Amino acid sequence: MRRPLIAALLVVAMVQIVSAEAEISDETQECLMCHERYTPGIVRDWESGRHSMITPAQALLKSEMERRISREDVPEEMASVAVGCYECHSLNKTNHPDNFGHFGFDINLVVTPDDCQMCHLTEAEQYAETKKANAFLILHENPLFTDLVNALVSVIDFNGADLVPLEPAMNAKNETCYACHGTKVEVKGTEIIETDIGDVVVPTLSNWPNQGVGRINPDGSKGSCTACHPRHSFDIEIARKPYTCSQCHLEPDVPAWQVYRESKHGNIMQSRAEEWNWSNVPWTIGTDFQAPTCAVCHNSLIVNATGDEVLPRTHDFGARLWVRIFGVIYSHRQPKQGRTWEIENQMGQPMPTTFDNQHAEAFLIGRDIAREREEEMKSLCRNCHGPSWADGFFVKFDSTVAQADQMVLSATELLQKAWNEKLADPKDPFDESIELKWVTQWLFYANSLRYASAMAGPDYATFKNGWWDLTKNLRSMQESIEIKAALKE
Amino acid sequence: MRRPLIAALLVVAMVQIVSAEAEISDETQECLMCHERYTPGIVRDWESGRHSMITPAQALLKSEMERRISREDVPEEMASVAVGCYECHSLNKTNHPDNFGHFGFDINLVVTPDDCQMCHLTEAEQYAETKKANAFLILHENPLFTDLVNALVSVIDFNGADLVPLEPAMNAKNETCYACHGTKVEVKGTEIIETDIGDVVVPTLSNWPNQGVGRINPDGSKGSCTACHPRHSFDIEIARKPYTCSQCHLEPDVPAWQVYRESKHGNIMQSRAEEWNWSNVPWTIGTDFQAPTCAVCHNSLIVNATGDEVLPRTHDFGARLWVRIFGVIYSHRQPKQGRTWEIENQMGQPMPTTFDNQHAEAFLIGRDIAREREEEMKSLCRNCHGPSWADGFFVKFDSTVAQADQMVLSATELLQKAWNEKLADPKDPFDESIELKWVTQWLFYANSLRYASAMAGPDYATFKNGWWDLTKNLRSMQESIEIKAALKE
Amino acid sequence: MRRPLIAALLVVAMVQIVSAEAEISDETQECLMCHERYTPGIVRDWESGRHSMITPAQALLKSEMERRISREDVPEEMASVAVGCYECHSLNKTNHPDNFGHFGFDINLVVTPDDCQMCHLTEAEQYAETKKANAFLILHENPLFTDLVNALVSVIDFNGADLVPLEPAMNAKNETCYACHGTKVEVKGTEIIETDIGDVVVPTLSNWPNQGVGRINPDGSKGSCTACHPRHSFDIEIARKPYTCSQCHLEPDVPAWQVYRESKHGNIMQSRAEEWNWSNVPWTIGTDFQAPTCAVCHNSLIVNATGDEVLPRTHDFGARLWVRIFGVIYSHRQPKQGRTWEIENQMGQPMPTTFDNQHAEAFLIGRDIAREREEEMKSLCRNCHGPSWADGFFVKFDSTVAQADQMVLSATELLQKAWNEKLADPKDPFDESIELKWVTQWLFYANSLRYASAMAGPDYATFKNGWWDLTKNLRSMQESIEIKAALKE
Repeated sequence: MRRPLIAALLVVAMVQIVSAEAEISDETQECLMCHERYTPGIVRDWESGRHSMITPAQALLKSEMERRISREDVPEEMASVAVGCYECHSLNKTNHPDNFGHFGFDINLVVTPDDCQMCHLTEAEQYAETKKANAFLILHENPLFTDLVNALVSVIDFNGADLVPLEPAMNAKNETCYACHGTKVEVKGTEIIETDIGDVVVPTLSNWPNQGVGRINPDGSKGSCTACHPRHSFDIEIARKPYTCSQCHLEPDVPAWQVYRESKHGNIMQSRAEEWNWSNVPWTIGTDFQAPTCAVCHNSLIVNATGDEVLPRTHDFGARLWVRIFGVIYSHRQPKQGRTWEIENQMGQPMPTTFDNQHAEAFLIGRDIAREREEEMKSLCRNCHGPSWADGFFVKFDSTVAQADQMVLSATELLQKAWNEKLADPKDPFDESIELKWVTQWLFYANSLRYASAMAGPDYATFKNGWWDLTKNLRSMQESIEIKAALKE
Repeated sequence: MRRPLIAALLVVAMVQIVSAEAEISDETQECLMCHERYTPGIVRDWESGRHSMITPAQALLKSEMERRISREDVPEEMASVAVGCYECHSLNKTNHPDNFGHFGFDINLVVTPDDCQMCHLTEAEQYAETKKANAFLILHENPLFTDLVNALVSVIDFNGADLVPLEPAMNAKNETCYACHGTKVEVKGTEIIETDIGDVVVPTLSNWPNQGVGRINPDGSKGSCTACHPRHSFDIEIARKPYTCSQCHLEPDVPAWQVYRESKHGNIMQSRAEEWNWSNVPWTIGTDFQAPTCAVCHNSLIVNATGDEVLPRTHDFGARLWVRIFGVIYSHRQPKQGRTWEIENQMGQPMPTTFDNQHAEAFLIGRDIAREREEEMKSLCRNCHGPSWADGFFVKFDSTVAQADQMVLSATELLQKAWNEKLADPKDPFDESIELKWVTQWLFYANSLRYASAMAGPDYATFKNGWWDLTKNLRSMQESIEIKAALKE
Repeated sequence: MRRPLIAALLVVAMVQIVSAEAEISDETQECLMCHERYTPGIVRDWESGRHSMITPAQALLKSEMERRISREDVPEEMASVAVGCYECHSLNKTNHPDNFGHFGFDINLVVTPDDCQMCHLTEAEQYAETKKANAFLILHENPLFTDLVNALVSVIDFNGADLVPLEPAMNAKNETCYACHGTKVEVKGTEIIETDIGDVVVPTLSNWPNQGVGRINPDGSKGSCTACHPRHSFDIEIARKPYTCSQCHLEPDVPAWQVYRESKHGNIMQSRAEEWNWSNVPWTIGTDFQAPTCAVCHNSLIVNATGDEVLPRTHDFGARLWVRIFGVIYSHRQPKQGRTWEIENQMGQPMPTTFDNQHAEAFLIGRDIAREREEEMKSLCRNCHGPSWADGFFVKFDSTVAQADQMVLSATELLQKAWNEKLADPKDPFDESIELKWVTQWLFYANSLRYASAMAGPDYATFKNGWWDLTKNLRSMQESIEIKAALKE
């Protein structure tokens, strides 16, 4: 009764995709002629994606709920052809210092959110003000984070007596923090590429390659859509699969992926992923998927079996969140906006919480908004769980988050004692063994415990960077203080 | 020759499933009418599962080997309809303090093994006496384990001089150890849920949500079938896939999943999982799968290509095991029964081994039974491996398990020395740095080495929590003792 | 336009496979008759593989690019039948001390590269001189590595005062280092197996089972093809899937798999693996796969969409590599040949680099060859990436590799200071806490950083065993020296 129906629907879906044949512009056809040979991987990947199969005009024929396009006034010349090489790499040329002459065409090297918004306006607008869009600046503009980044990636020389950090190298930042957060990409000149159809002059870029979520692009825009929608299929299936999120949201500092994978939800996803429909828009609970994923809870347009909207699509990935469990250094209600370096706490630091866990309330969303968002999330849970299950889950979560904060407070007090008693030097808070243990307490262990609770992956609450390590690390900090104090006597 | 046959069999299988259309009871139809709207995820998931497609009476028509149902005398009114909402949520009402009036029906909130046994009697009986069924009680009734749990999840305050553990919170236990082991669920009252079809009164439960394997249910039964057969498809495919087992049997304390994943068997499974038949009953070596999984070795009904039984199905997951490599604190032959807190060793402790590796023989299975079980397991291996391969494997395993125990003994002796020389305080064995290192030795590293040997994942024997960490941890304990002794002088 | 074509091709492919029915030799038919019953898993697995479906003669009818067989003069009697039990287990009998009489046939227990080369000559020849083929000897013939292995796997007794390593056991080596590197397998006697068709006498082997890449076989050959092409399907799909490589190339010492999995390439692979064609020969960029895997970059025959060869197949897995980022103890250009114990550096050690990072240039490939190999790899990248992307990637990689080496040098200088000042004893360089921290610096953390850079998995460059741990470990070594120095005063 049900199975044949599903089979029938699949056949219909396949036919629809195939029939949506889109005309390819003359310019793109010319691109393909050479690039079929020089970058065949790009061409094949593009062909496998929706952009090659459907024009913006065809996309706009869909009902509003089914649309993957959010601008109704796509310019005529773009609307009637497939979204090909030229359509994306030739937009807004005057804003693009990376524009260059290429066999008679003016081509942008880097396609940016400001280009993608020609069709995906709502998504670009939602994204523009988020923590993700500001991810590079959050590190770069906040002196405390800058210090931590520098402490992390400085080559340290040993001069025979002391360890001496050298000036941190740009490549080391790009390889680590900025790989996810994004780099600042600028045109630094041009280079000549020799090919068998003649020399080709292309711009050269600084801090490149990079596809971090807060990349500063040559055109001044922020972000890289390909961080989640990788080139050149830009496949919604890939963006929705948790493997994408897992590239940056992973242990030890943000173990969202590992916790999810080890949860019952992750178990069901891994067991049945191949049977799910990862591409449908809107995305239907129970029919398309039988357990939540990152995208289900945090950004996709979700409907129930009767087609009613459960949650609207958002590309502000914090928009559904009330508490920020990535504690810096304690958990706190979500910041009001993405430029978090503008926060000023009671100690005058650009941080949402002070060392003793006071919160910069003026910069955080209010309790009412937080409550609303929590209720909205719970409304999603209740599509599969009774009210007592869902309520109990969130009560437990609140307690665990508070307990993680208490374990960070104790570590902070231990460090403060070491500083007060001259067993460590507060000047650089990131250059002594006990200081690095303190960072580990909030950045790895407390985060793990909170994420474990948020997504029900108990290993990360227990023995894998959770309670066990919070406890062991406190005991180790204490022992270290005792030894140093005894030696000082 | 072979491929078309498989294809043909698949078609036949699909037709059989589809044709097995089951009538849905009036009560369940009424449930579905509302829940289609209020919990559509549950409804869709149930529809995707076997319970919605076949009645117990139809299930009983299958040959004994093919049956997934083990009670022949299913009551008439249940036997003739699909196993729907009402069929499961209305059983044994008088035993259910969580029963509540719900739009004219008396509904149990929590379905338990005592309910499932109405059809799956053998499975429930096999399960009832196992370590799994007793997993909550094993922690709760054994004072040593209670101390360890408490040491693990107590918030620790710093009072300016000392670290002071507070009273452990229930939610912290539920979030960690009890998440897998199970909680004690009791009805604590009722709450009113507002819906657009009027207020609904439902029971509220303590220590909920939980689906741990040893959960104590409101009806007094032990366990949660949904720990492995998740709601509401109850899919055997999910239960058989290692992702299910991996939720609890994972590093660092029980790295069964990680070791398996990194073994050749796991490699083959991951490479070919999509081509296997994960649902067939019985489960045929070579045809349905080409490498063992957790379920193959530990519980499923396995037959060979000619249909002969290789191993019978069991829901006593320790029934095929001879040695317990989860060392507490040393490996030992399997306990005779699941209530392990009733064990008393030579030191009067409720533990299978003493600190100096004497075994509580009276509480453990005998050597003859152990040998039988080992031979039975080997008989499974020999479906794909010659005798010299299989024999050599088990010889190596025995040696490695003994060596892991020796590395635990040395750590225990070091700790004993620290206690003897007043460099540490034995009063609470879980509150000092050196004591936590000792726990790590047996709970993480020795376990990793033994599991690595059992399933041939050499990384966990070598550098990932295995020999390397056993060795490094011993050296670190020794250094710590030397420093403390020097400071004391 | 594209989708139906793919579907059509799939149908054609399936028909071709099925039609390639191969005659089975009389000998193999006799094997199957019993083994169908005694080792059904082997039989089914073999039936699922290409060896059962196609004869060498049929295989040779394919065009050169499509061939999986590299010897044109396969002996007539083998060429005309399927590659069955007898065809492989009866070769080169006089070289096989493991040959034994078995129901009228002379059977080799262990099939080796010298047997496989009867059809796969080029692969066997390429493999024979590699580091992989010599992996056992590399550990066994190099006294420094022998010491490290012994330090790793020795049971350590505590005699009340000191930790005393015992003689390392063979099984412990086989379970750890030799599991991947290979063991030395020799015939040590025979045993009698009782079966219901009578007693069967089979040879017994030492250091068995094992399928390490550098296994020394009874016939004197090196290697085990089944390490990557597991028995008895010998499926190219399994060999190509990264799960195979991941068995040995994994964290913490060689985190190639984890880094890849967390990279964008790994993300795409995991999202689309089921849609890829993992079996095609040659393997076409964009059509068969849309992101590189281990095999794509390191050994498979790769062509572009027009069928032009991008990279030839090789079974010398280091042949495309220029720099060896598995630092022992620093990165260096690839050794010229696989017998690395023959290297002699400036300190007279059998190592490619000295403690202070001088390189044994005479034993390493030259800069020109290194440059050629780098350019060849880049030519692969450029099928999907523009020149500025690819160039920038390798510039960053070079810097990061150099920085990792600097962080190892500082650790080495710290250790040297501890030795100089008698805070540690250089006699055994692997038996004190600070020495094990030093090993961790180069073997785990510096390797992680380099692999993270090589395959763009930033977590392993940052917080997961990368820069963070390199830094924290240095600080911890320094603190340890300070404490010991203070205690000595």
